[in-house]
Amino acid sequence: MKRIAVLTSGGDAPGMNAAIRAVVRKALYEGMEVFGINYGYAGLVAGDIRQLHHNDVGDMISRGGTFLYSARYPEFATEEGQLKGIEQLKKFGIEGLVVIGGDGSYRGALALTKHGYPTIGLPGTIDNDIPGTDFCIGFDTAINTVLDSLDKIRDTATSHVRTFIVEVMGRNAGDIALWAGVSGGAEQIIIPEKEFDMAEVATKITEGREKGKKHTIIVLAEGVMNGNKFAEELYKFGDYHARVTVLGHVQRGGSPTARDRVLASQFGARAVDYLKEGKGGLCLGIVNNEIIASDIIDTLEKGSHRPNVALYKLNQEISN
Amino acid sequence: MKRIAVLTSGGDAPGMNAAIRAVVRKALYEGMEVFGINYGYAGLVAGDIRQLHHNDVGDMISRGGTFLYSARYPEFATEEGQLKGIEQLKKFGIEGLVVIGGDGSYRGALALTKHGYPTIGLPGTIDNDIPGTDFCIGFDTAINTVLDSLDKIRDTATSHVRTFIVEVMGRNAGDIALWAGVSGGAEQIIIPEKEFDMAEVATKITEGREKGKKHTIIVLAEGVMNGNKFAEELYKFGDYHARVTVLGHVQRGGSPTARDRVLASQFGARAVDYLKEGKGGLCLGIVNNEIIASDIIDTLEKGSHRPNVALYKLNQEISN
Amino acid sequence: MKRIAVLTSGGDAPGMNAAIRAVVRKALYEGMEVFGINYGYAGLVAGDIRQLHHNDVGDMISRGGTFLYSARYPEFATEEGQLKGIEQLKKFGIEGLVVIGGDGSYRGALALTKHGYPTIGLPGTIDNDIPGTDFCIGFDTAINTVLDSLDKIRDTATSHVRTFIVEVMGRNAGDIALWAGVSGGAEQIIIPEKEFDMAEVATKITEGREKGKKHTIIVLAEGVMNGNKFAEELYKFGDYHARVTVLGHVQRGGSPTARDRVLASQFGARAVDYLKEGKGGLCLGIVNNEIIASDIIDTLEKGSHRPNVALYKLNQEISN
Amino acid sequence: MKRIAVLTSGGDAPGMNAAIRAVVRKALYEGMEVFGINYGYAGLVAGDIRQLHHNDVGDMISRGGTFLYSARYPEFATEEGQLKGIEQLKKFGIEGLVVIGGDGSYRGALALTKHGYPTIGLPGTIDNDIPGTDFCIGFDTAINTVLDSLDKIRDTATSHVRTFIVEVMGRNAGDIALWAGVSGGAEQIIIPEKEFDMAEVATKITEGREKGKKHTIIVLAEGVMNGNKFAEELYKFGDYHARVTVLGHVQRGGSPTARDRVLASQFGARAVDYLKEGKGGLCLGIVNNEIIASDIIDTLEKGSHRPNVALYKLNQEISN
Repeated sequence: MKRIAVLTSGGDAPGMNAAIRAVVRKALYEGMEVFGINYGYAGLVAGDIRQLHHNDVGDMISRGGTFLYSARYPEFATEEGQLKGIEQLKKFGIEGLVVIGGDGSYRGALALTKHGYPTIGLPGTIDNDIPGTDFCIGFDTAINTVLDSLDKIRDTATSHVRTFIVEVMGRNAGDIALWAGVSGGAEQIIIPEKEFDMAEVATKITEGREKGKKHTIIVLAEGVMNGNKFAEELYKFGDYHARVTVLGHVQRGGSPTARDRVLASQFGARAVDYLKEGKGGLCLGIVNNEIIASDIIDTLEKGSHRPNVALYKLNQEISN
Repeated sequence: MKRIAVLTSGGDAPGMNAAIRAVVRKALYEGMEVFGINYGYAGLVAGDIRQLHHNDVGDMISRGGTFLYSARYPEFATEEGQLKGIEQLKKFGIEGLVVIGGDGSYRGALALTKHGYPTIGLPGTIDNDIPGTDFCIGFDTAINTVLDSLDKIRDTATSHVRTFIVEVMGRNAGDIALWAGVSGGAEQIIIPEKEFDMAEVATKITEGREKGKKHTIIVLAEGVMNGNKFAEELYKFGDYHARVTVLGHVQRGGSPTARDRVLASQFGARAVDYLKEGKGGLCLGIVNNEIIASDIIDTLEKGSHRPNVALYKLNQEISN
Repeated sequence: MKRIAVLTSGGDAPGMNAAIRAVVRKALYEGMEVFGINYGYAGLVAGDIRQLHHNDVGDMISRGGTFLYSARYPEFATEEGQLKGIEQLKKFGIEGLVVIGGDGSYRGALALTKHGYPTIGLPGTIDNDIPGTDFCIGFDTAINTVLDSLDKIRDTATSHVRTFIVEVMGRNAGDIALWAGVSGGAEQIIIPEKEFDMAEVATKITEGREKGKKHTIIVLAEGVMNGNKFAEELYKFGDYHARVTVLGHVQRGGSPTARDRVLASQFGARAVDYLKEGKGGLCLGIVNNEIIASDIIDTLEKGSHRPNVALYKLNQEISN
Repeated sequence: MKRIAVLTSGGDAPGMNAAIRAVVRKALYEGMEVFGINYGYAGLVAGDIRQLHHNDVGDMISRGGTFLYSARYPEFATEEGQLKGIEQLKKFGIEGLVVIGGDGSYRGALALTKHGYPTIGLPGTIDNDIPGTDFCIGFDTAINTVLDSLDKIRDTATSHVRTFIVEVMGRNAGDIALWAGVSGGAEQIIIPEKEFDMAEVATKITEGREKGKKHTIIVLAEGVMNGNKFAEELYKFGDYHARVTVLGHVQRGGSPTARDRVLASQFGARAVDYLKEGKGGLCLGIVNNEIIASDIIDTLEKGSHRPNVALYKLNQEISN
């Protein structure tokens, strides 16, 4: 291929800019032309497309968000939208597409693949819930952002001998809660992948206090329930005045960590390698510490994301 | 005096530990003995008091929270509680007291002063709402914490062309909202000290978009109303889908900034100077960039906190 | 005035972009046109000048460095260079100039003023060594950057029971060393404004160890001597194996702190106020917590910078 | 086993405290007793040993350095020292030892193993140069610290259109340079594992400027040569005025990242699992994203560390 394009779609994630930069730089290095599509699939359908040059991505590696903007665009679920998108790409002479995003973005990439358009998906979502990879772009930054908040909340929790419930993102996945919880020394982690018993939650708080613990921090994945509801339920089991903090969109921003920038760079460059060889229909991942490509149809239809639930047990053993 | 004590009370603030450290180190430097009281006025009444030595405050300057713990203790509003506290101090041979905290803490210090017990108040609250000082210990750290969150939220707001309402602390004062809002480049700042008109808020969002702004960030002081209520009200004026982030207790933690550590150190050392000379009944402040002492009775009964509302107008001129 | 320009010159400082943004936004708010000059006085003389619009400064408030670039340009010390610069400004119809920078930049602004060209200087240098102001743009960020490094070095110093000499910037001023030293809990601070006796430095290290201190951190202002030389001199007084860290240019970068952004915004907007009224020949400062303007000729010819040396004594009392 | 001990040795690394905490908490969870040895092998030989309880490691997960202190102790290379150490352990009834550290620490663990004492090594060094693992405790934090400095230096480099040489740690390994260089968008990375040609370094700087790059950042691993020497050599190839920054010990400190805390927790808990089963003579690692144990004799005598040099090529393709 001689001319490719890149778009970001769905929720933004730190490192998306680093991935775009890698696609652009690697494509130029290989003598290809590269185009950026604004606002994800919405911009694709609308033809909001421009050529990208070396300096367009200068200093982009350190920036959070995505300079190509993102958007949710349910209309792309229709065949009409998809064909319109392919038409736009062809109009610009673009032969292959790199899509960076999460679940919804991948479904778009899958549709393009089924229409025969060479597309490569890069997993970019802080939720880390994409099949075909152990880690997604943005996850490492997000867990460090949450960790930073947990460290701050612990100052207050310790000073006041309090219980805090910290609701974190992750959609239906517990990855953020698990990693941030273990690294933040949270006394309890509540995730969708593991049943929990509120009576036990209450008992552990009491036991911790008896052991001399000055704080109890419970990290709660949003996929289980929201923080205020959890606090109410907990209160039914005794006089537990828990403060609730909902970290919210702060988790999606920030300058990416070293890992996220390296991972994004590896993915971006590798995507260009495949397109250069004319290969599409793939999604990239890092599995067992190696960058790999899988068939996007297989991965989405048969694969599933498996969080590292061994961390759950680890935390119960060392953070109580 | 030869023997003094220190306590922290009310909501914790970054830099309280730096202030305690300065009290301890300066007292030892002056040949005095110094005691720490745990859990604020509650510990004072209960006699939870221990001597502090040079190494007890080693490396404390960098830590958030307060290693003497804090507590709200409404019982100290009664004369009985106050006299019990003084009795405990006398039992330990303690001749003067340094109280670090906010509004409620100051009222306790005022009561002790009225009973004739030499007490000095140091303003420690992220809300920055204490009379007698331009800045309180913890405020500088808090505005930088909020700023960090605003920078992160802007990544997402820009990437998605969205409106965000960010609710920040401050009780009835708008200081955090003002300083964080100006420094974060927030399009609008809503504070208790200034009336606002929701129709105008809505108009400005629309105008910003027309100017090509990719994001609208509204920093809302909690003293006005809560973020979700604000979003609902805004929605009445048009199709404004604003995301709400409530930063919460994260704002109260964290390693203190350079300014907060220096200010806390200045306050702590100065408090010891006064107690050494036998002077109590004072509260310290930084006014016009100078460390000063004021009569605590006068200050609390006649003084008032005045936020820098010039920042409000400044922001309207440069951030729209 | 209807048309003004802004340049940054000399060493860059965090917050310069925030100041440029405030000049641009305030000028537009006042109905004026505003131009940016690239590469400081070099670009002025060369006519590297372009109009700036609302979106040119979007998101600039959070960025370190200066997007107008900076340069040292000794040729501007000649009358020829100065007249050439004024000619360029007139060619573009520019009636007044805002100069953001340190010592050398101010001398350029002084020269333009003496030639009758309306110029306003804003103090922007991490060294904080400009007369007419208590604080310069960039200083607050720099001391927090140094503080962050001191906190990290203390981890290692404590773990290994070591002595560290940390050389910090400041040219001939000790401000960075003083503020970072006090806030970092450095055992000793060595600044140009205070004589020091190496024998005493050595004695204090020994005394600290005897008191049980696990680390000795000496913050050394570059204006005294360089770190390696200091370590050598110290070694003559006994078996002191001090590690040396030279923080270097890291101190000049980074996203500005809340204070630096607010200060820069206040300065930038105020400069436009004066130029709008046709007033030049001024330099702005924050003195006793108030934004003021002084005559630039008086300030540079008679004024002098006075660091807060009270912090020196404070540190000796609380950090030994 | 019923009673085990833990020590940290060699250069400190962020996450060592998290690893100690995990050893302590997991041992208590398993009903074992656990002892801490101060000052590494020096303290082992001297018998500077104390029991550790649940609260001794409270809040330790977030702290840089090692609260058990570390020391280099060449005397432990002698058989006499080793036997003395084992004698001390037996005196305290300690049946197994966890050693956290780098190269030298592992050699000590190897010696103890050869004497038949059950010992488990955990890789803790920012240099990441230990065989038997892809990543060492502390490496992730160190690369993020370096990255933060690179981002700051880029502000200045861009503002002044300059070349910077940034010397980073790593002993004979290029890992820090590789990861920080790629993530920092450094134009060139110089590591011991790859030959370099100074003429080519010079040519690339010139080419970058011609492409419009505003900065050139060269990340130099200390194992190649020191930064000043490199700058001198470079100058022989043309008028390249490169600034040199030697990041130094800042790289070894700081609160550990989420990854380092999780990795340290996994290692610490796993080490206890093995000792509980009576197994020693192992060193732990994370290989292909899985926690594994290898025979320490085999690993040290036959194994070697292999940095991810694919990153070198990647950087050449996307950062020039």
